[in-house]
Amino acid sequence: MIIAETITEVRQQVAAWRKEGLTIGLVPTMGALHEGHISLVRESVKECDRTVASVFVNPTQFAAGEDLDKYPRTFERDVELLEQNGCDMVFYPAVEEMYPAGFGAEIQITTDMVHQLCGASRPTHFKGVCTVVGKLFNIVTPDKGFFGEKDAQQLAILKKMVRDLNFPLEVVGCPTIREADGLAKSSRNSYLSPEERAAAVILYKTMQAAKEKLESGMTDAEEVKKFMTDMIQTEPLAKIDYIQVVDGIDLIPVKEVSPGDLVALAVYFGSTRLIDNFTV
Amino acid sequence: MIIAETITEVRQQVAAWRKEGLTIGLVPTMGALHEGHISLVRESVKECDRTVASVFVNPTQFAAGEDLDKYPRTFERDVELLEQNGCDMVFYPAVEEMYPAGFGAEIQITTDMVHQLCGASRPTHFKGVCTVVGKLFNIVTPDKGFFGEKDAQQLAILKKMVRDLNFPLEVVGCPTIREADGLAKSSRNSYLSPEERAAAVILYKTMQAAKEKLESGMTDAEEVKKFMTDMIQTEPLAKIDYIQVVDGIDLIPVKEVSPGDLVALAVYFGSTRLIDNFTV
Repeated sequence: MIIAETITEVRQQVAAWRKEGLTIGLVPTMGALHEGHISLVRESVKECDRTVASVFVNPTQFAAGEDLDKYPRTFERDVELLEQNGCDMVFYPAVEEMYPAGFGAEIQITTDMVHQLCGASRPTHFKGVCTVVGKLFNIVTPDKGFFGEKDAQQLAILKKMVRDLNFPLEVVGCPTIREADGLAKSSRNSYLSPEERAAAVILYKTMQAAKEKLESGMTDAEEVKKFMTDMIQTEPLAKIDYIQVVDGIDLIPVKEVSPGDLVALAVYFGSTRLIDNFTV
Repeated sequence: MIIAETITEVRQQVAAWRKEGLTIGLVPTMGALHEGHISLVRESVKECDRTVASVFVNPTQFAAGEDLDKYPRTFERDVELLEQNGCDMVFYPAVEEMYPAGFGAEIQITTDMVHQLCGASRPTHFKGVCTVVGKLFNIVTPDKGFFGEKDAQQLAILKKMVRDLNFPLEVVGCPTIREADGLAKSSRNSYLSPEERAAAVILYKTMQAAKEKLESGMTDAEEVKKFMTDMIQTEPLAKIDYIQVVDGIDLIPVKEVSPGDLVALAVYFGSTRLIDNFTV
């Protein structure tokens, strides 16, 4: 596996692959790889001739006071995992390579979808995500980009970015990978104390219970949210940031729940904020 | 010459050319083509295997009260001119093709360069330009994009956009084309009355005189601006919007003029706003 630290190296390798007529998949990550990321790499390997993963903890998607500094960095282990799973190149740029002195450009979504869900408490987050992913798309020029459904809002926003700005590639969403007890895999799970980790299973349990409610005929979004709120609040270590039901494309809150809608939540356990979701 | 009205048609043709290993040049225009545009087409034909011109009066770069509705539209003549000059495809999309219902994404430069010069009186203009040109870059995926030096601020901003967002292409600036008396060619010249057209030559005369002053040792930017202001004000039909001296890359006003700096101006004749510039 090639480890490229510069944009120039990536472009040269991509140009060589293109010359051979090979297709390219991109898996953007912030490192600290877990089975969720690896499932994206495997899907890319399945769908494309060559797979590029990026490992870059993007500072512009963290606001002041968020966990940029303590975000886990495990590059050597990441390289092993990528290599074992068929990745052909990892792009591992320094911050200065992505944001050189005097940098000043951004890509953003201007509809309300960036203010919903995580956007309410992280108002600049998705501008940082769109900008860095747009840059990665332009650097790697992949045929397909692979993103996890666990970050459902990010996935919907990037699909909109690609559609509205005509990026010449397909955004592929891949299913959330979970621990044995149902907790969604996340690099941030490593922040949890053993007690918090045990408590966090309430998220999955609540989503499963909500799915049953929806299957047995509950359609009022407020009712669904109240049911989930009540259930999560039975766990004393959980502090709800939001529980919301939105449509699956534009992420606008709905009153009546229908197929394709997204039920999404963010809940703190101590200072660790976990997100999860399911599509109705 | 192919006339493509949809993004799909453009992509298919570009893919066919790419398969043959051909390079592609893009000349984005708002139509009402004159010799300035044609010089860009000729440069593209010279430098690239295939040339695509776009003809699209982009509404998002006009503010309320600007000349969107009266902007000249001469598509049949444009097609003739493009064909005569070796253009291979013209992309002529409807507004709905570029901005479908629900559209909501933008690209912008966040440094001070978008607030200088024309940005002072047109605060949303360059966001519209960056967004539409970014879309065109993603639709056509050219090797090179050709832009006129007459729109010096646009050229500098698009170079920054390409650099900072890593668009995989080169932005090529081409010299301003002028009428016999020195007036820069512009689609907006057609708005001028015969008296205004005659008066507008003061811009070129003033720039030539300023060049002489600079060559003979004037270096104080305020002095240069005052000299130019005084000279333009000898023309009663001219109403100055701005005269500014900025560095050629970041467009920040300078105190001492040095090689590479940009001397730029915008002046009204009646309700028609003309721009021009020269590089020291």
